[in-house]
Amino acid sequence: MIKILVDTLGGDKSPVVNIEGAIKALNQIADLELVLVGDEKDILEKLADKKYDKNRLSIIHAPDVIDCNDKPTEAIRQKKESSMYKCYELLRGDESVNGMVSIGSSGALLAGAVLKLGRIKGVKRPAFCPILPTMNQKVVGVCDSGANVDCDANLLKQFAVMGSLYMQKAYGVENPKVALLNVGVEEEKGDLMRKEAYALLKEQNTVNFVGNMEARELLKGDVDLVVCDGFSGNVLIKSTEGACMEVLKLVKRTLLSSLKAKIGALFIKKDLYKTKQIMDYNNYGGAVILGAKKTVVKGHGSGNAESVYHCIEQAYNLEKNNLRQAIESELSKISE
Amino acid sequence: MIKILVDTLGGDKSPVVNIEGAIKALNQIADLELVLVGDEKDILEKLADKKYDKNRLSIIHAPDVIDCNDKPTEAIRQKKESSMYKCYELLRGDESVNGMVSIGSSGALLAGAVLKLGRIKGVKRPAFCPILPTMNQKVVGVCDSGANVDCDANLLKQFAVMGSLYMQKAYGVENPKVALLNVGVEEEKGDLMRKEAYALLKEQNTVNFVGNMEARELLKGDVDLVVCDGFSGNVLIKSTEGACMEVLKLVKRTLLSSLKAKIGALFIKKDLYKTKQIMDYNNYGGAVILGAKKTVVKGHGSGNAESVYHCIEQAYNLEKNNLRQAIESELSKISE
Repeated sequence: MIKILVDTLGGDKSPVVNIEGAIKALNQIADLELVLVGDEKDILEKLADKKYDKNRLSIIHAPDVIDCNDKPTEAIRQKKESSMYKCYELLRGDESVNGMVSIGSSGALLAGAVLKLGRIKGVKRPAFCPILPTMNQKVVGVCDSGANVDCDANLLKQFAVMGSLYMQKAYGVENPKVALLNVGVEEEKGDLMRKEAYALLKEQNTVNFVGNMEARELLKGDVDLVVCDGFSGNVLIKSTEGACMEVLKLVKRTLLSSLKAKIGALFIKKDLYKTKQIMDYNNYGGAVILGAKKTVVKGHGSGNAESVYHCIEQAYNLEKNNLRQAIESELSKISE
Repeated sequence: MIKILVDTLGGDKSPVVNIEGAIKALNQIADLELVLVGDEKDILEKLADKKYDKNRLSIIHAPDVIDCNDKPTEAIRQKKESSMYKCYELLRGDESVNGMVSIGSSGALLAGAVLKLGRIKGVKRPAFCPILPTMNQKVVGVCDSGANVDCDANLLKQFAVMGSLYMQKAYGVENPKVALLNVGVEEEKGDLMRKEAYALLKEQNTVNFVGNMEARELLKGDVDLVVCDGFSGNVLIKSTEGACMEVLKLVKRTLLSSLKAKIGALFIKKDLYKTKQIMDYNNYGGAVILGAKKTVVKGHGSGNAESVYHCIEQAYNLEKNNLRQAIESELSKISE
């Protein structure tokens, strides 16, 4: 049995989507146990009309929420009645709990992973690894994407090792292609850190390093993992998300811009919906904090129940496939 | 009279688009003189059927081209018969020449600016500043976007000063809003360099600093200039371009995906074309190397004649509005 905590607070549509996603996961996965953490009365109300195996669901009361106005490190230390705080207390204190899923504040979740959970043996710094859907209907991981704004080449190597294992364990990618985010593809490109990282990755034979990658290639889906410092990784995923969103808005506006366009829109509505599904983050799970002592998955703050369901499924898969143990074992070999 | 060199080689559709763009510029701008640098015979052939003021156009023979397979610094030193090499020789040696436009190798163009032209007095390092069209039909400059992969806070401040003057002189933006690219909007976000740069920019009263900006906001057009180190700036523009391109490809594929969609496409064709125009880089000129001793504009390598025309117009405007002098004057005040 895999036991996962579900933080039911902190998202735009919480706790409804969190609870609905949890119920779906319970009904889909037989050896999954869930603990809903949040406002007990509210949770019970929302559960009233749901069908699920009551032996595999429990509730822990935590009425307070950490939101984006809170300072992450302060909040995760001081908001003791918050759902996220309680999740971390349980994760740390209860051996039987495997991991947690939250769609609340990324900053607080990261702070909690570092301050309250600690790292897997051998991990220098945990890294934030979201995934993005690509145009060839695969996914690409980006590691790190914001946990570590100051990095060095050795950290980048660890991100590559952890991220590569992650793509195997979470998405079944065999021998994941790992690229280094850089300003050009040639080996000598980039700053000193990138040049050093390139050399280290070339030598690292457990990583299938395919060289440098420029940011414009990300969505093509030719590689499975992009390794970067947290600052440029953050820029990479946010600008990609932002651009996709703005272009789709523009297309939508176009379809409403004239009577003729509106008629055309009726014809392409169905196909356009299918296309939108390819790019919908709700279908792809969340970002994982790689290197933390237990599995922590962060879903999109404005995600729906489907999104929460995929995050839980993802946490379950990582535990089932022993990602944490694989990271520890792999990193111990490197440091030897 | 403003005298601009046009490198006619190095682009995907060179020299045709370069020459056509040059002719359009000559016919539109009365006090502009152009020098076409490239294969003389080829240029003369392409000019044969064109109408323009022959007193304002001359040709310099340079049959060789620097392409993306050349190592930039080596090529700009050694390929003495290349059009770009000759342009820099002229820019450096001939006082009457104001600037140049090229759609060839960015790396070689940058190397030439640093190695052959040198910097405006007071400029620590030239910066590469492209512009992107935004969804509210304005433009945003990104400085630096690849010339300087290793930066410090003082360099970022210079980028802000130069970029701000640039947005005024090239696009007539009054009191341009300048933002610092960061992983979050709060003042304390980012690495040490970003925190230092934030403090410096807050104090810099000739720059209208509006605080930190996340990458996902870029295309909204709320700010006029984004300041960043060359590495993350490069990631910012390339991932934005890449994402826009991939989404548009996906939309196009959708419009051809079924008979029904194809019928719908006929209705929205015209409106979609208008929308595409908003995002078409050909309508917006090129990237400027800010801080170089003379005006250097880099157009898109796959740009068309319209793109080259806008680049020439841009170079003309910058010289007409004395950008270089303004940068020198402004930076001398800061260092005092």
